[in-house]
Amino acid sequence: MARIAVTDGIDENAAESLRESGHQVTIGHHEADSLRSGSLSDFDIVVIRSATKMVEEVISANSGDSGSLKLIIRAGVGVDNIDIDSATSHGVTVCNTPGASTNAVVELTIGHLLSSVRNIVRSDRKMRDGVWAKKEMRGSELRGKKLGLIGYGRIARGVAEIASGLGMEIHAYDPYMSSELMDGDFTLHEEVDSVFKECTHISVHCFFSDETEHMVNLRRVSMMPSIGADGIECGNHIVNCARGGIVDEEGILEALKTGKLSSAALDVFESEPATGNSLLGHDRFSSTPHIGASTREAQARIGDEIISIVEEFEQGIIPGSALNRLL
Amino acid sequence: MARIAVTDGIDENAAESLRESGHQVTIGHHEADSLRSGSLSDFDIVVIRSATKMVEEVISANSGDSGSLKLIIRAGVGVDNIDIDSATSHGVTVCNTPGASTNAVVELTIGHLLSSVRNIVRSDRKMRDGVWAKKEMRGSELRGKKLGLIGYGRIARGVAEIASGLGMEIHAYDPYMSSELMDGDFTLHEEVDSVFKECTHISVHCFFSDETEHMVNLRRVSMMPSIGADGIECGNHIVNCARGGIVDEEGILEALKTGKLSSAALDVFESEPATGNSLLGHDRFSSTPHIGASTREAQARIGDEIISIVEEFEQGIIPGSALNRLL
Repeated sequence: MARIAVTDGIDENAAESLRESGHQVTIGHHEADSLRSGSLSDFDIVVIRSATKMVEEVISANSGDSGSLKLIIRAGVGVDNIDIDSATSHGVTVCNTPGASTNAVVELTIGHLLSSVRNIVRSDRKMRDGVWAKKEMRGSELRGKKLGLIGYGRIARGVAEIASGLGMEIHAYDPYMSSELMDGDFTLHEEVDSVFKECTHISVHCFFSDETEHMVNLRRVSMMPSIGADGIECGNHIVNCARGGIVDEEGILEALKTGKLSSAALDVFESEPATGNSLLGHDRFSSTPHIGASTREAQARIGDEIISIVEEFEQGIIPGSALNRLL
Repeated sequence: MARIAVTDGIDENAAESLRESGHQVTIGHHEADSLRSGSLSDFDIVVIRSATKMVEEVISANSGDSGSLKLIIRAGVGVDNIDIDSATSHGVTVCNTPGASTNAVVELTIGHLLSSVRNIVRSDRKMRDGVWAKKEMRGSELRGKKLGLIGYGRIARGVAEIASGLGMEIHAYDPYMSSELMDGDFTLHEEVDSVFKECTHISVHCFFSDETEHMVNLRRVSMMPSIGADGIECGNHIVNCARGGIVDEEGILEALKTGKLSSAALDVFESEPATGNSLLGHDRFSSTPHIGASTREAQARIGDEIISIVEEFEQGIIPGSALNRLL
């Protein structure tokens, strides 16, 4: 039975299930200093979200000769906060729970798209200000428009399915797309610029990296057509529920000011918490505080995945979501 | 060629097309007094929205022995503002454009549903207030939940299609459903109460009448289960993009206050403009100013339908959307 540290919280039912299976589960935050001093060294497994930074110094202080840590489970998708190379060299397996939050992000993305084109957030604000802005709030429909997906992984494909059902035409850019996915009902672009040139609606679904940093910027947004595939002047719209920094916020604000963008909706920011962000003052900007995976359902599914990862690992099986293969 | 009065506005392209076909189109508001004095008596056709009230006195002053009015076209769906019996007895045909705004209302309804369960409007408000309320904004997913549709006409069926794609289970109450529609992939309820007992999400898609007034009320909302079909505590949610007055606003406010409702989203109100509405103060209420049909696409389609109604009528054909059959 494993000794498990949970440093950034976990679904209650999952913790309960792990305990019922005989595991020792210790829930509580570890400060960066403590981590560097080996506060995880008496644990076999650590379950983290994004707050705990598993950098080289932390991994080496808790594994190998210095401790018993053998498995890092990221409850969620993004592993920006884990030095996977370092984990590999110290014999520590890294897993995430990639499928658990897919539907949560898909639904938030569609929600932001619909809210943006129909001015739901702006309308509510006007109503609370005592203004019945019926004419000003005229919007456009998603049906008949081209949706450009930057990245075509699991979440983007889920968004594409719903957006197709809404009558959108799907375009995608993803240089890492595996060949078996290329035959779907969408247009695959080899250049990111060409997606912007064709699509009035863009949604971001890629990882953050040097390559994707500021991929959505003023230059590219300026290429967007403003007129839908159906000939309707629907304006241009951007949604990012993936990772902060892929959208150049300064460029987006400029595009909102000039009217090149009719709306922008962000769930993620270059700097979080984003309470002082200058985009927040713009009427046609709307935002949520990084809640893409934040549904009760996703948390429950993450809990289920953590349980199965722990079970497999205890049986000596490499979990399916392992991000490194140890020698 | 017909003399056409347009009293509440029309899509520019539609007016242009009608003129190009040789019709005389006069655009401008008519006061109630003028209408009663026969200001439409020199027109063959009047195109109205909801603002112009075609009551008995107005119809009799402009048709039959008193004038040449023979066709009333409602640019939109609701004909609460037209006395159809009076029109029939004066030999005036009444048409609306029922299909033109369907998709616009479908998309707004799904937008309100997603925005409600993911706290998009609340999140944006908090962000602008300088609060990063990530934990408070945790939401739930539509997938795996039961959606109850009150009324199962064209719009409700469109909502059902998208909601099914999102993984919802569809329930409907519609005592006027034609038998050929009963075999779809949904559960048909014979009692409205039973929809509320089963569904955590309710969307209104019926006409306003004595029968439907306050059909959504505190008693019925109190029957809603709070726990989704998938076992998730998602709370209860109400959306109305149909007609004001079907939802008892006082009851809904009470249900929001007690937490029986987790959200309510209204596009239509008992009294409009609804700027002083007491619901507007509640954090979990969100609203839009009666913009269900207010998309560029719907206005363009309404224009197209008006043109074809005028053409058919001029050729002596009863338009397909005629709401009365003259003897």
